[in-house]
Amino acid sequence: MSDLPDSELLPLCLEHNFWTWSAQAQVQPIPIQRARGVYFWDIHGKRYLDFNSMVMCVNIGHGDERVVEAIARQARELAFAGPQMATRPRALLGKLLAEITPPGLTKFLYTLGGADANENAIKLARGYTGRWKILTRYRSYHGATYGAIAATGDPRRLAWEPLTMPGVVHFLDPYRYRSTFHRTCPDLPEEEFTQDYLNHLEEVIQYEGPQTIAAILLETVTGTNGVIIPPRGYLEGVRALCDRYGILLICDEVMSGFGRTGAWFAVEHYGVVPDLMTMAKGLTSGYAPLGAVAMKPEIAAYYNERVYQGGLTYNGHPISLAAAIATIEVMKEDHLVERARATGEVLAEMLAELMDRHPSVGEVRSIGLFGAIELVRNRQTREPLAPYNGSSPEMMALRRFLLDRGLFLYTHWNVVLIIPPLIITPEQLAEGFAILDEGLQITDRAVEA
Amino acid sequence: MSDLPDSELLPLCLEHNFWTWSAQAQVQPIPIQRARGVYFWDIHGKRYLDFNSMVMCVNIGHGDERVVEAIARQARELAFAGPQMATRPRALLGKLLAEITPPGLTKFLYTLGGADANENAIKLARGYTGRWKILTRYRSYHGATYGAIAATGDPRRLAWEPLTMPGVVHFLDPYRYRSTFHRTCPDLPEEEFTQDYLNHLEEVIQYEGPQTIAAILLETVTGTNGVIIPPRGYLEGVRALCDRYGILLICDEVMSGFGRTGAWFAVEHYGVVPDLMTMAKGLTSGYAPLGAVAMKPEIAAYYNERVYQGGLTYNGHPISLAAAIATIEVMKEDHLVERARATGEVLAEMLAELMDRHPSVGEVRSIGLFGAIELVRNRQTREPLAPYNGSSPEMMALRRFLLDRGLFLYTHWNVVLIIPPLIITPEQLAEGFAILDEGLQITDRAVEA
Ligand SMILES: Cc1ncc(COP(=O)(O)O)c(C=O)c1O
Ligand SMILES: Cc1ncc(COP(=O)(O)O)c(C=O)c1O
Repeated sequence: MSDLPDSELLPLCLEHNFWTWSAQAQVQPIPIQRARGVYFWDIHGKRYLDFNSMVMCVNIGHGDERVVEAIARQARELAFAGPQMATRPRALLGKLLAEITPPGLTKFLYTLGGADANENAIKLARGYTGRWKILTRYRSYHGATYGAIAATGDPRRLAWEPLTMPGVVHFLDPYRYRSTFHRTCPDLPEEEFTQDYLNHLEEVIQYEGPQTIAAILLETVTGTNGVIIPPRGYLEGVRALCDRYGILLICDEVMSGFGRTGAWFAVEHYGVVPDLMTMAKGLTSGYAPLGAVAMKPEIAAYYNERVYQGGLTYNGHPISLAAAIATIEVMKEDHLVERARATGEVLAEMLAELMDRHPSVGEVRSIGLFGAIELVRNRQTREPLAPYNGSSPEMMALRRFLLDRGLFLYTHWNVVLIIPPLIITPEQLAEGFAILDEGLQITDRAVEA
Repeated sequence: MSDLPDSELLPLCLEHNFWTWSAQAQVQPIPIQRARGVYFWDIHGKRYLDFNSMVMCVNIGHGDERVVEAIARQARELAFAGPQMATRPRALLGKLLAEITPPGLTKFLYTLGGADANENAIKLARGYTGRWKILTRYRSYHGATYGAIAATGDPRRLAWEPLTMPGVVHFLDPYRYRSTFHRTCPDLPEEEFTQDYLNHLEEVIQYEGPQTIAAILLETVTGTNGVIIPPRGYLEGVRALCDRYGILLICDEVMSGFGRTGAWFAVEHYGVVPDLMTMAKGLTSGYAPLGAVAMKPEIAAYYNERVYQGGLTYNGHPISLAAAIATIEVMKEDHLVERARATGEVLAEMLAELMDRHPSVGEVRSIGLFGAIELVRNRQTREPLAPYNGSSPEMMALRRFLLDRGLFLYTHWNVVLIIPPLIITPEQLAEGFAILDEGLQITDRAVEA
């Protein structure tokens, strides 16, 4: 493969590749050469500081030899076995996951990524409850297969409606900064705010009919839609509503899991155990495609004598499972969960400082190494720097500036996401924040005088 | 990982793993240890002859070091890059695929497997045509994600109806052996039979309204539903109907591609170029999870200035792409397409012989190394040995016998599928057929006197 000259890499990619989530004539892919730790390099030797863990997934950082060698070893030992085979990595990963997931989650269905993990969770819940509706929130992303995109609340689902999976009802997120109903009561105590949104959820449950609702599916901490952290008591309240109405709670930890929030899984912060929990991304740190659904034993047992109708050729691929095992071992060996918690405090301080210095910063949010900067034209009115589901010249200029300066990150409308590998040092964080600090001068100029 | 004693492999798998397509309390997974060529071994040293290419995918055979080392090399060089990055394997695989797919297919969207390849093909077709209906056949399997399972015609879709993707209409397969409308005219020339089914398809197009139909999606040669080979002129006729009505033709070559039928892709036998073609399985021979959608440039170009709304975190995973490149190189180096064609003739002879010797064989079918044995209680009435979507004591006894004797294969209701790795030798084929020959004594006893 090394016989392809660097200069032909990009043209050849452009000639034959169809790009997802893109207008084909407008893509500007980075011709990547190598990656190591929190950095990657393009073929021209330009270095990028990765503040997005590539696709919010490389939690342990790039190029970790322990995972690389585990993949090579598994490929040599047994590169492939079908989903109906008992393999060594299948045995070992189940044990490891049972140890690190919340107590009570004991069975694991392996998938190829996050989307099909959520689809399987929905199927499991529909089968087990005999009900069909799935409640999810508007500010959510759950994946792009036809079922997962229906579950998604954000506008990415709109292109294919109404031809996606039926049965999903969306409800409102407890997103304090933009809560429609709390414009005029900025001083409402957090408990009351939480209660309003739990009452709202209960209201929707009543309107829809509890006996029709199989599950409530939510991102424990909302990811791409802006690192929206549940207010105090919210997740516990949702759990209680689920228990009251016989509804299953599915927590999507595809982005928030595997140390991202300074805990193995974000649910730990709230002492809540979901009935089903989905994961992907950090599970293998991206080294191989893999997702999983964790479930309570009674849900698995419902399918003891009934055939579970679902599965793909590559469910439980040995190489992917081996990558997951090695990733979890790296996280344990290097204490990455603890490290994310500690560095997360540094991140929170840096974010607060940025907010002090830049009038275009309306709010900053973070939990662990999961951070967001919400940019506005006006702190009073909170007018976003880009409209809902849109962009703006200022956001585009900011993005261009950061990329030019070698800071790789993800922006969502008016929000800048900070989702670096968990191995990032305070110095490396500071390196990125220095670039951000410069970049925000662009957006500050958009602030109304 | 080697510190797990063999004896704990199976119990630990059973403790924590949730099995797809299974009743959990009834699974009997094979504890697999290693695999090489056309064989694999369990932890007790029992050897299995693999007549199913594991999951109809290991076309180049197990444990090929050239692919294993390509995976290890890619993992070391660049284990992961996001779907928006230009990588070396992305550049090279596109070029290779453009060379081996039918002329006119020039752009490739990489997916994780077959299901999401079909889902993306459906999205591309719906977007490009501005129409919404997808026509597929009753005897088909297109995958298990919510969109792919809706496209599927066989009963695997029923568990989740009506909560799957809307907009699919199923039509009848040109399946001569069980054609409802040809009971009384066994001597009808093939051309007339074909014409009946093309007329049927056109009738459905008219009833549904051509202006509502985005695409006809079909397995070029139907796989799990029994290796149903299109009769002479059929595929050409479907292509002509598509052209007449502005409908896109999507050929699902997930199982029939990559040498399976003695051609790179089954469409070559018919001289037909689909507008979109999906693949997976043989693309990497299972060594890593990967699927792809091949498309004509005008379909890609429709998305030049419009964002294509779809994609998953692991689309175009470098390790999977590297596995595909190495697999294709192995196939070329070892002339596996030609070999499959040659050995396919041996398979056809062996099948014919089996039919001569066993009254329970109602029909045998094969193309390349893609074979099926259709078992019946009565050759005259063609009563199947197991009912539609069901099993029977005789089929279960046959399956148990074959597995006991170390012949690993897939049965579908009353049909036995023969889908070995393309590297199989005539001697190895004969080894499996000797076991089949014995096993069919069981089913022969079910034949009515
Ligand atoms: C919260 C969440 N759920 C699900 C998904 C879908 O995962 P995948 O892209 O692996 O299908 C994502 C991907 O970004 C995600 O962020
Ligand atoms: C013809 C066909 N299409 C699609 C699929 C789905 O592929 P996957 O299981 O990789 O999603 C299969 C799988 O058996 C298949 O045989």
